[in-house]
Amino acid sequence: MDLEKLRHSCAHVLASAVKELYPKIKLGIGPTIENGFYYDFDLSGIKITEDDFPRIEAKMKEIISKSLDFRPVKLSPEKIKEFLKKEPYKKELYEDFKKESKNITFFGHGDFIDLCKGNHVSNTKEIKVFKLLKTAGAYWKGISSNPMLTRIYATAFPAEKELKDYLKNLEQAESRDHRLLGKQLDLFSFHEESPGSVFFHPKGAIIYNELLGFIRSEYKKRNYQEVITPLIYSKSLWETSGHWKLFKENMFLLNMDDKEASLKPMNCPSHVLIYKSSIKSYRDLPLRIADFAPLHRNELRGVLSGLFRARKFQQDDAHIFCSEEQLESEINSVLDFINYIYKKVFDFDYEVELSTKPSKSLGSAELWNKAESILKKVLVKNKLVYKVNPGQGAFYGPKIDFHIKDALGRKWQLSTVQLDFAMPSNFEITYEGSDGKKHTPIMIHRALLGSLERFIGILLENYAGKLPVWLSPVQVILLTINDKNLKFAREIKKKLEENEVRVELNDKQETISRKVRDAQLMKIPYIITIGDKESESKTLAVRTLDGKVKFNLKVENFIEELKEKIKSRK
Amino acid sequence: MDLEKLRHSCAHVLASAVKELYPKIKLGIGPTIENGFYYDFDLSGIKITEDDFPRIEAKMKEIISKSLDFRPVKLSPEKIKEFLKKEPYKKELYEDFKKESKNITFFGHGDFIDLCKGNHVSNTKEIKVFKLLKTAGAYWKGISSNPMLTRIYATAFPAEKELKDYLKNLEQAESRDHRLLGKQLDLFSFHEESPGSVFFHPKGAIIYNELLGFIRSEYKKRNYQEVITPLIYSKSLWETSGHWKLFKENMFLLNMDDKEASLKPMNCPSHVLIYKSSIKSYRDLPLRIADFAPLHRNELRGVLSGLFRARKFQQDDAHIFCSEEQLESEINSVLDFINYIYKKVFDFDYEVELSTKPSKSLGSAELWNKAESILKKVLVKNKLVYKVNPGQGAFYGPKIDFHIKDALGRKWQLSTVQLDFAMPSNFEITYEGSDGKKHTPIMIHRALLGSLERFIGILLENYAGKLPVWLSPVQVILLTINDKNLKFAREIKKKLEENEVRVELNDKQETISRKVRDAQLMKIPYIITIGDKESESKTLAVRTLDGKVKFNLKVENFIEELKEKIKSRK
Repeated sequence: MDLEKLRHSCAHVLASAVKELYPKIKLGIGPTIENGFYYDFDLSGIKITEDDFPRIEAKMKEIISKSLDFRPVKLSPEKIKEFLKKEPYKKELYEDFKKESKNITFFGHGDFIDLCKGNHVSNTKEIKVFKLLKTAGAYWKGISSNPMLTRIYATAFPAEKELKDYLKNLEQAESRDHRLLGKQLDLFSFHEESPGSVFFHPKGAIIYNELLGFIRSEYKKRNYQEVITPLIYSKSLWETSGHWKLFKENMFLLNMDDKEASLKPMNCPSHVLIYKSSIKSYRDLPLRIADFAPLHRNELRGVLSGLFRARKFQQDDAHIFCSEEQLESEINSVLDFINYIYKKVFDFDYEVELSTKPSKSLGSAELWNKAESILKKVLVKNKLVYKVNPGQGAFYGPKIDFHIKDALGRKWQLSTVQLDFAMPSNFEITYEGSDGKKHTPIMIHRALLGSLERFIGILLENYAGKLPVWLSPVQVILLTINDKNLKFAREIKKKLEENEVRVELNDKQETISRKVRDAQLMKIPYIITIGDKESESKTLAVRTLDGKVKFNLKVENFIEELKEKIKSRK
Repeated sequence: MDLEKLRHSCAHVLASAVKELYPKIKLGIGPTIENGFYYDFDLSGIKITEDDFPRIEAKMKEIISKSLDFRPVKLSPEKIKEFLKKEPYKKELYEDFKKESKNITFFGHGDFIDLCKGNHVSNTKEIKVFKLLKTAGAYWKGISSNPMLTRIYATAFPAEKELKDYLKNLEQAESRDHRLLGKQLDLFSFHEESPGSVFFHPKGAIIYNELLGFIRSEYKKRNYQEVITPLIYSKSLWETSGHWKLFKENMFLLNMDDKEASLKPMNCPSHVLIYKSSIKSYRDLPLRIADFAPLHRNELRGVLSGLFRARKFQQDDAHIFCSEEQLESEINSVLDFINYIYKKVFDFDYEVELSTKPSKSLGSAELWNKAESILKKVLVKNKLVYKVNPGQGAFYGPKIDFHIKDALGRKWQLSTVQLDFAMPSNFEITYEGSDGKKHTPIMIHRALLGSLERFIGILLENYAGKLPVWLSPVQVILLTINDKNLKFAREIKKKLEENEVRVELNDKQETISRKVRDAQLMKIPYIITIGDKESESKTLAVRTLDGKVKFNLKVENFIEELKEKIKSRK
């Protein structure tokens, strides 16, 4: 069954039910989205909450039970005028559509009519399983100066079981919500004084710095060179790069030396300036410039979403400047890097998409052909199955996207490897070839984890907070059963610290079961209870988060195994 | 001899000489500064360059040789009016002064008269040794919307030898100018697209990250906790902290959610927000929160000065929240930390100044007394000689400043340890004491290296670019005498890399003397030439930057010694 048709039809039914129950409301839009659909309403002062869902769902069922056909509706110009007069948002859409096309269509079921391009099931009775999920505020057209509408999220499935599975997954995802985990584990907070920018607490900063240190250590092995760059740039830079025209809305603007400037939303032009700061020859290429600079994007408040969508974030960003001849081996290295991180370190499955030359593009057809065939060749060489998105590349070059699948089966786009034929020529950067002539290098934009903030959010939800030991803010906690064991506990603590293990000691006057429970809530991977037996035999009882306990471990053996695990990032 | 009087008098002579040579010019101000003085002139279209200095100096000598007395000049109101009509800048000053005092004085020598508070030698003949140094542009009153005046820098000394010593020192300082070294060693660059913000190239970023890593490793030992915080904050935060009123001019302002906001110029309020994000008890104190966030201050373009004064910089900044009882031990730890860094790691001598309660202050006299006596006690305990600046503390608490002395004898203020009784109460932060009651913690602001940018500038000039090996971007360079030695060179390179030594190999087809010279210009601490003898005997010939060469070093011994040197930061 076509889920798209089913959900789109169900959105119509939702709109008709709400309209019947609250005749005064005005209709916004009602598209399908991943896993469901929504409909936006201007409630004209009425309030709808999740408490009203049973009533709306009952009305929807009533409508469905009438077995109404979905049908195109031909309206006379007068009828259209009448419809649009009652529905001001539809009127705005109608006028927008009219600029693009003469053929604007309406569809209906029963008495309900909607401005719509079609794609429905044939009859309401085909809608068997649906559920309203939640409400949210949403600006009309996503623009904050527009009215705030009420959005009702819902979903529909062909069969009950599928809905149940989906809801179960959703519940699981909610219990893993990184915003809740962030609070529970004392990793980060958000504050009204800087909406959308994360305050990483000490424990969150440890995760952040471990990830960054990991990428940095790989950069050393893979011959990337880190730079540290300014955050504010003059308008003139963004004009050259093209961002002023295309991205200005998303930048935080400010004045520098009485002229327009902005906080950088991306690093590329910074690296071009460094490239340009000295004359380059073919011997300097490939040049792999990496940067962890904080980036800022002025996202609307309504779309901010914890670590997933923040206004300030840092990427594991790098730009590779290379010659055409070096393209293949550079792309190959990047794919190896990605596979190493996703598969070897985090054990994520991932999918690959290649987006090719769009109709409007920059750079010769020859260069595009060559580049695309190199990308394909390298993908095949790396035994990567990939989907082609024809014509979906950026105007300045083809790209490869990587989507990982998390423990709940959700997909996340992380890496992009993007060729750029435009920026090098916009900024007029060159290198002297071995032929003594000037050439323009190709620029490869690449980020592997993407935004570190977002990646931490994904990790937290993927592992339900039980991070791999190398990323855990506290790796070991020692719990004393009574004060007699304190001396041995302190010895162990000192030894662990000498081995750079992050360890805490809980010597509070509490029951051991309470201490264990607290440590489990904090998702500490190794929980060591120290009682008389351990103090006397100088051994350890180690509990892991899967509930298993190993007794009589020799201290040295435990430390060695732990160190190995941390070092190998397993 | 009073240098102040001598130089101030010489400034008058300079002004009178310029006025005689170029009657149309208008006088600005002419204060003494460290090591000399300057005078600002509006040249009304005339251009004065350093080529004109001999002529001006000759005229000054001519004036001096007339043995003119410096004397107070009583002017009638008419004469004052006449003077101010000719000198519009003096007129502005005169009106400024009139708001503060009724007694405005003039001083003169010969026919020259200046608006002046006095403090001269008695006669021009006392000025024996002087020199004009350079010209620079300077906005009137330092405000960029005011006219640009021409500033002539000069100095004067009682005796020729002192001038010579000073000029020699100046020349040395100039040859060590970190801006030149930054370019020569490929450490960083500045670009018109972001004036005042440093672009650290890969080699500069290594120094930066090494320093940061060093401080971070000390934080671990000393129980500081690092956080990562946003860079943009709403106006309301700065109003609570008091910065909006006192510091707004120095902040980069922008809009966030259609409201006024700014880039943070300092970290303190960020840490207060984190403190406030959960309820604190006496068991949570002392809380030492560290942050390397990039800070921004909107400095005027005219005062920007390489790494010394930048618009974007990061500090090794931390705030300690503690109870009154913990103050002594916390200050003691900070002094230990400072001594460790300055003396043990960098071998800098340093001077200490304690600034005490000003007339207008916040917090009870009792608290101030107690805090000041604790600071004194801890200084004495640490055997630190200190100077007291009575009444020079901030209104919100006393402070201790630390000034290091570099290789050229120049002093640099780096650390500040600043108590703060105000911010905790402005933000209403508290902790529950062991008595079950709410208390207000004391906040200690402290930075040790201060701005990392500035500190790197100081290090570069102090070491004339020859950084200690742990900070050197390239620690070892291998130079092959011919291609037969390449195999052995690569072996050594691999071994060094396995030991985390930053090593380069120069296998270009160039003479060995050329290669050595290039490596010396790049200030690489260990230069290893590899010829047939070394390849055969598997030993090393190691040249250091003092020109010494050690032959027949065993590879393992060299690596061990080097590793130890890097680890101990010597």
